[in-house]
Amino acid sequence: MNLSPHHPRFLSLKTRDDLVKAVASGLVAPQGLIAQGRGEAFDYLIGERTMPTASIATLAAVALLLEAKSPVISVNGNAAALAGKEIVNLACTVSASIEVNLFHRTLEREELIARHLKNFGAKVILGVGSAASKTIGGISSPRAKVDPNGIGKADVVLIPLEDGDRAQALENEGKRVIAIDLNPMSRTSQVASVTIVDNLVRAIPALIESSRKMKKLPPSQLEKYISSFNNERNLANAMEQIVQYLQGWIKN
Amino acid sequence: MNLSPHHPRFLSLKTRDDLVKAVASGLVAPQGLIAQGRGEAFDYLIGERTMPTASIATLAAVALLLEAKSPVISVNGNAAALAGKEIVNLACTVSASIEVNLFHRTLEREELIARHLKNFGAKVILGVGSAASKTIGGISSPRAKVDPNGIGKADVVLIPLEDGDRAQALENEGKRVIAIDLNPMSRTSQVASVTIVDNLVRAIPALIESSRKMKKLPPSQLEKYISSFNNERNLANAMEQIVQYLQGWIKN
Repeated sequence: MNLSPHHPRFLSLKTRDDLVKAVASGLVAPQGLIAQGRGEAFDYLIGERTMPTASIATLAAVALLLEAKSPVISVNGNAAALAGKEIVNLACTVSASIEVNLFHRTLEREELIARHLKNFGAKVILGVGSAASKTIGGISSPRAKVDPNGIGKADVVLIPLEDGDRAQALENEGKRVIAIDLNPMSRTSQVASVTIVDNLVRAIPALIESSRKMKKLPPSQLEKYISSFNNERNLANAMEQIVQYLQGWIKN
Repeated sequence: MNLSPHHPRFLSLKTRDDLVKAVASGLVAPQGLIAQGRGEAFDYLIGERTMPTASIATLAAVALLLEAKSPVISVNGNAAALAGKEIVNLACTVSASIEVNLFHRTLEREELIARHLKNFGAKVILGVGSAASKTIGGISSPRAKVDPNGIGKADVVLIPLEDGDRAQALENEGKRVIAIDLNPMSRTSQVASVTIVDNLVRAIPALIESSRKMKKLPPSQLEKYISSFNNERNLANAMEQIVQYLQGWIKN
């Protein structure tokens, strides 16, 4: 695409273009483009910026990741294409494993995503092919399959861009789910322990930055970030901010 | 896709599946899937139903189409894939021409779309290949090219699923633009003469139904539908309805 960096919608249009290329290369399923579009619309409704409620959720998320015994970052095609490098960086900072988990699962695409992440320095990528040998109940899609060394034994799972069934199933298994989801009303957002209502491309760098700072904190302080966080209240605040944004539009 | 018709999201998932297939067959550009996702998100915000404001806009739109000397329905890949049959039906009912106009233009796709619409009984499809010989100012994309026998001489143009640049350019040419757009804040929605904030798959059948009824009305009555319609006020009402829907969510 021939696009000027001065175009007012440059970042949004470039992201679109990147994802269309990622579909052509096989990294992203065509359905991933529809998910991207939904995200774009909700990002628009929050003014395409990180809301204060997202920053609060980010602190709780980092505390959970740092306190976890076996944290795992679950990656699908969109997440790999949009923030592969940053996800590897975050995993390194909080000592988390990375597991591939796809809704539209093919071995070819799993391997492509693993290679893509290894190019950014990831040593091990879990969940590829027969490594995803454990089945989690309550999920009817191929997403039910997880790696026993990864999500299978994880206590905290970060799921960027997820479907509601799986978020619910992971919580039912007693895992703490951190979701990154631009729609505060989605089932994923509603069932997660911590929901960051923000665009992945802003949320992951913010998680990295906070992780670096909070790594030095004692467990007692991390606990405070977790115990003082209320996801339901935080989501309601996110909704309030969206409503205020829309009301501003009506007056104009 | 193996999908049960009893799934609560059946219609939405089936539409997604249809569009992914339409990309595979070349009817829809990959970018069309991102547009579909944006539409899905906004449709969600209006409760996936036709709002009263959309029904009001539909009456004004039908009056414009019936009063027009040379009405044209502009069709892109998404519109053809989602409502090809209904668009041909509407064109027949209001005696409008159909013109293909694509953002991601290729002759192959133009011809595919024309064939697709002819399968539903359309006799002539304008704007294919060199037939789009006239250039409209103010548009930097290939969408600037129009058919002199279609949009080039049209007084009323129905543009389902459109970009803002083109909606503005058509209005600047003195044409009355009827937009079907799920985002009431989009530039297309804001610049059109009549904006139907609704999903295309509900909006076109509603236009057909009203056209059949209103065809019998004298011009003076059609004029009243047009003169009493205020697009700005109607869009503000649509926004109010969305805000109310979101506020309902916060309380729950």
